[in-house]
Amino acid sequence: MSIGIGLVGAGRMGQVFAHTLAYSVAEVRLVAVADIQEEIARQVASRFGIQNFYGDYRRLLERKDVEAVVITTPTGTHTEVIRAAAAAGKHIFTEKPLSLTLKGCDEAIQAVEKAGVKMQVGFMRRFDPPYVLAKRKIEEGVIGKPVMFKAVGRDPGCPNLEFAKRENSGGLIQDMGVHDFDLARWLMGSEVERVHSEGGCLVFPQLGTVGDIDNAVINLKFTNGAVGNIDVSRNAVYGYDIRTEVLGPEGALMIGVLQHTATLILTRSGVTHDTVPHFMQRFGEAYAEEIRDFVDCILKDRPPSVSGEDARAATAIGVAATLSLDEQRPVLLHEVA
Amino acid sequence: MSIGIGLVGAGRMGQVFAHTLAYSVAEVRLVAVADIQEEIARQVASRFGIQNFYGDYRRLLERKDVEAVVITTPTGTHTEVIRAAAAAGKHIFTEKPLSLTLKGCDEAIQAVEKAGVKMQVGFMRRFDPPYVLAKRKIEEGVIGKPVMFKAVGRDPGCPNLEFAKRENSGGLIQDMGVHDFDLARWLMGSEVERVHSEGGCLVFPQLGTVGDIDNAVINLKFTNGAVGNIDVSRNAVYGYDIRTEVLGPEGALMIGVLQHTATLILTRSGVTHDTVPHFMQRFGEAYAEEIRDFVDCILKDRPPSVSGEDARAATAIGVAATLSLDEQRPVLLHEVA
Amino acid sequence: MSIGIGLVGAGRMGQVFAHTLAYSVAEVRLVAVADIQEEIARQVASRFGIQNFYGDYRRLLERKDVEAVVITTPTGTHTEVIRAAAAAGKHIFTEKPLSLTLKGCDEAIQAVEKAGVKMQVGFMRRFDPPYVLAKRKIEEGVIGKPVMFKAVGRDPGCPNLEFAKRENSGGLIQDMGVHDFDLARWLMGSEVERVHSEGGCLVFPQLGTVGDIDNAVINLKFTNGAVGNIDVSRNAVYGYDIRTEVLGPEGALMIGVLQHTATLILTRSGVTHDTVPHFMQRFGEAYAEEIRDFVDCILKDRPPSVSGEDARAATAIGVAATLSLDEQRPVLLHEVA
Amino acid sequence: MSIGIGLVGAGRMGQVFAHTLAYSVAEVRLVAVADIQEEIARQVASRFGIQNFYGDYRRLLERKDVEAVVITTPTGTHTEVIRAAAAAGKHIFTEKPLSLTLKGCDEAIQAVEKAGVKMQVGFMRRFDPPYVLAKRKIEEGVIGKPVMFKAVGRDPGCPNLEFAKRENSGGLIQDMGVHDFDLARWLMGSEVERVHSEGGCLVFPQLGTVGDIDNAVINLKFTNGAVGNIDVSRNAVYGYDIRTEVLGPEGALMIGVLQHTATLILTRSGVTHDTVPHFMQRFGEAYAEEIRDFVDCILKDRPPSVSGEDARAATAIGVAATLSLDEQRPVLLHEVA
Repeated sequence: MSIGIGLVGAGRMGQVFAHTLAYSVAEVRLVAVADIQEEIARQVASRFGIQNFYGDYRRLLERKDVEAVVITTPTGTHTEVIRAAAAAGKHIFTEKPLSLTLKGCDEAIQAVEKAGVKMQVGFMRRFDPPYVLAKRKIEEGVIGKPVMFKAVGRDPGCPNLEFAKRENSGGLIQDMGVHDFDLARWLMGSEVERVHSEGGCLVFPQLGTVGDIDNAVINLKFTNGAVGNIDVSRNAVYGYDIRTEVLGPEGALMIGVLQHTATLILTRSGVTHDTVPHFMQRFGEAYAEEIRDFVDCILKDRPPSVSGEDARAATAIGVAATLSLDEQRPVLLHEVA
Repeated sequence: MSIGIGLVGAGRMGQVFAHTLAYSVAEVRLVAVADIQEEIARQVASRFGIQNFYGDYRRLLERKDVEAVVITTPTGTHTEVIRAAAAAGKHIFTEKPLSLTLKGCDEAIQAVEKAGVKMQVGFMRRFDPPYVLAKRKIEEGVIGKPVMFKAVGRDPGCPNLEFAKRENSGGLIQDMGVHDFDLARWLMGSEVERVHSEGGCLVFPQLGTVGDIDNAVINLKFTNGAVGNIDVSRNAVYGYDIRTEVLGPEGALMIGVLQHTATLILTRSGVTHDTVPHFMQRFGEAYAEEIRDFVDCILKDRPPSVSGEDARAATAIGVAATLSLDEQRPVLLHEVA
Repeated sequence: MSIGIGLVGAGRMGQVFAHTLAYSVAEVRLVAVADIQEEIARQVASRFGIQNFYGDYRRLLERKDVEAVVITTPTGTHTEVIRAAAAAGKHIFTEKPLSLTLKGCDEAIQAVEKAGVKMQVGFMRRFDPPYVLAKRKIEEGVIGKPVMFKAVGRDPGCPNLEFAKRENSGGLIQDMGVHDFDLARWLMGSEVERVHSEGGCLVFPQLGTVGDIDNAVINLKFTNGAVGNIDVSRNAVYGYDIRTEVLGPEGALMIGVLQHTATLILTRSGVTHDTVPHFMQRFGEAYAEEIRDFVDCILKDRPPSVSGEDARAATAIGVAATLSLDEQRPVLLHEVA
Repeated sequence: MSIGIGLVGAGRMGQVFAHTLAYSVAEVRLVAVADIQEEIARQVASRFGIQNFYGDYRRLLERKDVEAVVITTPTGTHTEVIRAAAAAGKHIFTEKPLSLTLKGCDEAIQAVEKAGVKMQVGFMRRFDPPYVLAKRKIEEGVIGKPVMFKAVGRDPGCPNLEFAKRENSGGLIQDMGVHDFDLARWLMGSEVERVHSEGGCLVFPQLGTVGDIDNAVINLKFTNGAVGNIDVSRNAVYGYDIRTEVLGPEGALMIGVLQHTATLILTRSGVTHDTVPHFMQRFGEAYAEEIRDFVDCILKDRPPSVSGEDARAATAIGVAATLSLDEQRPVLLHEVA
């Protein structure tokens, strides 16, 4: 059995998923691609041997042979596309975040529930082998019940200014933190109760002109009493730096990659190695794994591994943490969720 | 020329300094030791070949051949001993923290100023080679102007409950964080403006019975706009874990030691190595270095490298961060300092 | 333009290459597969969507749409298949080693030359990014002219006894060392002049019953005066352990991977991580890269990156090193080559 | 009880031991120092508070309060000084190597036996914590019975040419390899049966003018069948690089230090750290430990941990490995020992 997939959104992430669907996932057929820029849809269709392409994604949804969609459109359109796809009876895989607003999340979740389709959200780190191993070790009780969560999420450069606007990215904390907020809930096995953020526009003044910042730290208090902290930054010029740490009464887990190419260069200047340049070098395989898992959940008719509710919870933390930054006070999740 | 030193306090840290003064620092003579338990003073004198010992430190201060004192008494007595030593015209090296209260810090600083003696406070990490190298790299501009400070400070076990009381240790945040608060100011080249803490008694319930906690995270906002975060924990059962990180627009510095003995053990279970068990294994040499620096500042009649004002500033951050924990709100340093 | 490929040999490595050709290399069509066990050829054809399968590879060679072959049959058949493929005017990619005998290498090289086709040999490490980076750094002069070559090549377990026989694998030194012999020539930029081996059957007595050993060390003297040493072992129970080192007057390069999953587990027992379990986890991408490079050399009509002469030279070192083991004396390459 | 020590030889290593004896070893009194250059003896005596100094070491041996001597004179004089010290009834600690010749070793051993004094030889690595841990893990059976020994021993620069002469240093292989030869026997629990060396003068032509080389590899065959290899080099310009590895059927041990200061510097150029610059930074504490152990063996009247026979065996391997280099053939230890 093979599932017919329609790809909605053929930009950078759309092409990542097109490649994954074309080459790395068994039991799928990529039958159609849509992009608001039809020419891009056409090019991607041609490149990956997809038979059908559209400028209007609703045409794609009309196809009977499209059983599931992968949505990689801009975040602001997720809710609309999800509603349409659910109404058309398609299973849904959507890139994260589900929505920048809780209202958007709720509408998507309700549409999916009403239609009785499956929806999985693209928190690919949950499928990255180092995180999978960490989760398993926690479940095995190796470190005891987690009491502290730490995360570093740093990009090597300034984003596009249009994207950086609050209405498009949610701002630094939502945009970069959303992965860590999801990991926090997943690895700690607890919801977040309260957040407090500090941040600033310290390196890229242009971000300030569109209301964004480039560095932030976010304290977390979990409902089970545990504590946590996340830092996010745009100026890790040394590379793409993602590290996570969970501390428990019996030990700790540290997840992270500092060296990219397994070559040490030793000279009079010391020992040098390179770093991970870009998120695809770090999480490329995890993108394939999450799609395989989504396909598996359709084939086995089981609940998705990362649900709409999971995605809503991550967005809620981001909304609260951004409010904390704005109002310079701790914010309870109850206030926003 | 050789400086006559009197050691006040012959407990655990007193013995560390006695050993350092006896064996690792040139140009000093350890001429007398005092401890409120005279028998301990006698034993330490005997062990390190010190001629004179006292149960009352004031007797030690009367000695003409004591030109400087090293104070390793309980923190609550620092101010009193410093006032007496300053009044007696002795130069002063005191273990950190200078005092748990800002009033105590101020009294000590004023006494020292009035007497015209030198006072250095024992933030030994500033003399640890990895931190010295990091500071030098920052000054050389290797990472640009720092924008983020991160620190991990974790002990491998629960402290003595009597010590854990707020009046004795200042509580977890003051006790463990004071080193990181000092590093934050020193490495970032900026004062702290605002702090926010989250914490809990999550692993050692006995700490809760005396009003202490075992895990905390502390957000920092610096006066120059930079941000930071520190975590402190009592339950790093895997070892003594001290790590620090400074991020700037041109790069980052990471200071920390995870492996203690340079032996990897490779079996079917994977690769294993040990960790640093205890602070003396990590900072032993730094204790000697800070005393050498203190002696040098006397010999060269130059200002101490770590001043009373530095110590007061670190205490102020600790007081504010503890208040933040108590009142569940960000606290401005201006409120307490 | 797209090149029609025929796969000859559908065993373990054949399936690796089938997967690579099907999913990871652009500009190729896998049009036919042959295996002496036709049923296996059929299964692999079915699994990877190949239209044609054969029990007799000569049938495959008759196809006009097969422009190039990938040979993954047992080493002992390489020469025969290469001669037939060359005579049929097909370009040839063959797994290493080209042949266990120099006579076999020579016959293959002559057949290819006579037919005017291209032949590339599967020393995939030359396409592994850490080795590519090391080669580039050497060419940039970062370590000066190399003077010492070191290599570790260790498998995590005992091979199949039938394979372990000299006539099938060449014995431990040829089988495991051939990659290091190739790297030695490539990275050092010099031929090997003399070898000396010590070895023994120390862990798996069953290997001794078929005339093989499980541990060896091989000294190398290069024609340019440089020195080297390689160790090979079958009992690295901790994982698949491949490390290489090149030392020059201005520095050194170290290539190798000890940690597989980027997760550290910290407990009272210390810090633990896993290791690379298997060669595909280490070199999977390099297998794709070498095929891409072979396709590129056909498309651009340029010489292959790893020639028959390269493969012959690696075999010659292996033959000499095995003779050294047998006769307990240094062996000059001139004696065997 | 405290043992009176006389130091014979006040050069570089003599001063290392003077410092160790003065500051880091309890239960000893450094009562006298001798050096053929009396002025140097006088300076060292003054610097370390030693009461008596001599230009003629025999005067030192006459002292009743000298119960043991530490010999740090040039290797060529060891035998003579040991014979005199033994005849004077002094216990003896001598720097490695005991002698460059087996005849010299034998004379020293016989003199010590005849006099009934204790003699320990300065293979300090046996007291270095990483090696101590490795030895313990082997004895605990963690890796099973060792089957392969690997060692890297590299200095960051060219030695003094006068010292480099065969008659003074023994040549590269003896001079640098002697520590590894001792570790090989100690960690493998087996004698060496056969050696084969390759080497060359590849980086420092001036070494060639005095008959020395700068790079070598040495294959080892142990009497129990195990194999090994050691490389030694003078041109590790990146730092002092000492690594050892033991492989067994159940696992492996890797001992070595690549990073010196625990600071990582992360910039656009990648991640950089420094290396160990010099042997004292790596083995400083081991020098103190070996002297403590020697003192302990006197106090407890037990056999020394590193005997004259151990030292003779290490020299024998060095002699054989150097002969192998000269004659371009494997050499059996029986030929030289």
